[in-house]
Amino acid sequence: MSGTLLYAQSGGVTAVINATAAAVIAEARARKIKVLAGRNGILGVLREELIDTTKESAAAIRALAHTPGGAFGSCRVKLKSLEADRARYERLLAVFKAHDVRWFLYNGGNDSADTALKVSKLAAEFDYPLTCIGVPKTVDNDLAVTDCCPGFGSAAKYTAVSVRECALDVAAMAETSTKVFVYEAMGRHAGWLAAAGGLAGKTADDAPHLILFPERPYDEADFLKQVKRVVDRVGYCVVVASEGIRTADGNFVADAGGNKDSFGHTQLGGVASFLAGRVKDSLGLKVHWTLPDYLQRSARHLASKTDLEQAMAVGKAAVQYALKGMNATMPVIKRISDSPYRWKIEPAPLEKVANHEKKMPAGFIRKDGYGITAAARKYLEPLIRGEAPPPYGRDGIPNYVELKNPIVRRKLADWKE
Amino acid sequence: MSGTLLYAQSGGVTAVINATAAAVIAEARARKIKVLAGRNGILGVLREELIDTTKESAAAIRALAHTPGGAFGSCRVKLKSLEADRARYERLLAVFKAHDVRWFLYNGGNDSADTALKVSKLAAEFDYPLTCIGVPKTVDNDLAVTDCCPGFGSAAKYTAVSVRECALDVAAMAETSTKVFVYEAMGRHAGWLAAAGGLAGKTADDAPHLILFPERPYDEADFLKQVKRVVDRVGYCVVVASEGIRTADGNFVADAGGNKDSFGHTQLGGVASFLAGRVKDSLGLKVHWTLPDYLQRSARHLASKTDLEQAMAVGKAAVQYALKGMNATMPVIKRISDSPYRWKIEPAPLEKVANHEKKMPAGFIRKDGYGITAAARKYLEPLIRGEAPPPYGRDGIPNYVELKNPIVRRKLADWKE
Repeated sequence: MSGTLLYAQSGGVTAVINATAAAVIAEARARKIKVLAGRNGILGVLREELIDTTKESAAAIRALAHTPGGAFGSCRVKLKSLEADRARYERLLAVFKAHDVRWFLYNGGNDSADTALKVSKLAAEFDYPLTCIGVPKTVDNDLAVTDCCPGFGSAAKYTAVSVRECALDVAAMAETSTKVFVYEAMGRHAGWLAAAGGLAGKTADDAPHLILFPERPYDEADFLKQVKRVVDRVGYCVVVASEGIRTADGNFVADAGGNKDSFGHTQLGGVASFLAGRVKDSLGLKVHWTLPDYLQRSARHLASKTDLEQAMAVGKAAVQYALKGMNATMPVIKRISDSPYRWKIEPAPLEKVANHEKKMPAGFIRKDGYGITAAARKYLEPLIRGEAPPPYGRDGIPNYVELKNPIVRRKLADWKE
Repeated sequence: MSGTLLYAQSGGVTAVINATAAAVIAEARARKIKVLAGRNGILGVLREELIDTTKESAAAIRALAHTPGGAFGSCRVKLKSLEADRARYERLLAVFKAHDVRWFLYNGGNDSADTALKVSKLAAEFDYPLTCIGVPKTVDNDLAVTDCCPGFGSAAKYTAVSVRECALDVAAMAETSTKVFVYEAMGRHAGWLAAAGGLAGKTADDAPHLILFPERPYDEADFLKQVKRVVDRVGYCVVVASEGIRTADGNFVADAGGNKDSFGHTQLGGVASFLAGRVKDSLGLKVHWTLPDYLQRSARHLASKTDLEQAMAVGKAAVQYALKGMNATMPVIKRISDSPYRWKIEPAPLEKVANHEKKMPAGFIRKDGYGITAAARKYLEPLIRGEAPPPYGRDGIPNYVELKNPIVRRKLADWKE
């Protein structure tokens, strides 16, 4: 087949999005298809900054599968409707034509699925033969249709293992020092990662003792009562709090500090910092807290093997769907059974994915609102199963690859917004 | 030999202090010596809450070597001078006598070495035959005499790997999103862990681009200028900041926010939060930050093999020294050569360790104050070398052991302070 395949990464990166990229490139190479990559995602396409992946060795592409971050650069650029952003969509098409791009693979979340869908519509309008494929990725696990999102399982494993480890630390210190520990998990709208923290323990006295979900209103009086109750019973209390929790009136708890300190400087505290302060002020207990932030989504050293396999499987399937002309689709993960955990990849129409958001099922949150149910555990546990550590160098650090990322010669005039 | 060996953990726990405990117990068992452990460190000795380790299986003790936290509980209790704290020291001796304790192994930092030393003096005063051994442990790496401290290498490896990973994330996002990332490392008085973050990169453009050490005064104007310069040159900037940095007038930067938010609530922001706010306010750049807190010292999943081996070696040597009656000593690590890295254990007098603090050599900090030197790299790099992952369960989480920790029957009256 003649023509070029263009791959681009979008939105927040993950521990395994490069594994998807590696699978895309390997599969395309096996079929003698040239792969270009957008430098910094769709922005690189608009700017005609296209990376020539053919210059990378097979070893570098294999190493890409164990390297976190986004090797070609990602971006946070959301295109609007075809009408509102007409000029940008037409520019994309012009770049595709100039480089004989026949297959466009956009690796991201809801927004990216939407962009891929719109590009495919515009191409049809102009009778330009283009197959657009959305490739799923997000640590937030909020994509519709797919059973889970590549990237989530590894962040979930990081969360569960980290909560388990810091809980052992707190348990040892609690008698004379720290009695409460707060772990802040990503998840602005859905509590998937906070729920994964629940996998750290099995019984009521195991950490985490309390999980705060964005799906439930934050009730400070009740929360503090619960903390005190756990400390009285267990001797210490480990809390996993989702960054997105809100009070009953809809305000983010993370904003409750007013975002300014007493000197008028911007205060970037977040939820864990705030909750820790409340526990200290109200209960007088010594408290520590952690905000892992990007560490939780870039910890390739602690990737889930299940997640890695799924990230590579969607990459491979994306190329296969593209070459079959299965336009406006996304390879998604379908769960066949929980125990043993079995899954397969199947195509889903981008229409069903774009701009939808998968909420966590209500049945995943315990009735009291502070923990996960057996149903949640059954869903989550297979996703963090298995280890896939990267190779380490003599320097004690993983051998993460840095690509050469040469830009192909431009053929069009400069792009101005 | 007849008599009991008492082991206790002290101060902040580490990823490998239990490995030291495992080595102590295994070595004592091989010599048919009974080991009791203080529940929550020295506090358990005062309270006569002594854990009978003979009830644990050999498999449980082996598993202890890959379990983070402090399996018998630790504590933050510092005994004062023999005069000021006479009653407590005499209580310790009374408990030792009641349980035929002939060997006391205290696993901790400077303070613990001091306590072990004082107990040994009191025992001599009362003609009670007791051998006291200090066993080194601290993520802060600030113990005198020993080349490095068990616990530090694993926290250092966590720091270097985490900085490397989040830097790859920021690099991918920088064009349209986060341009500055601040990582807060433990180290109230010395910048050892911040320096370890320097191992994440090799060249000037590699992250971390700036390291803030407590050994150098924090100059805000210069720091912000440096951040801007790095962003202009590299496109993004990763900062590792030690929690203990101070301004020229000696105030902790972590306290600069006033510790209250605009609502008068306690604000537990820390250094990274503060620096991130300053970067945002002054440079207008999008910034993310992380406070790993306890995660950095409990991440047994990412332990350094060198560190693990040293933690076990000091435990084994401590028992050997004890049984040889080498009173008031500590097994320390002596570096024989850098390349290849070779080390051995040798005894050091507790007098030389107690209440001393090892500072980071001035030659480890780059002249401009924002990075590490080749000498620092030569010292640090072997300490994070090698991997020693714990076994994982089918649930995707390491198989950390929970001991039974039965308390032996008490023989004395209650202890009241």
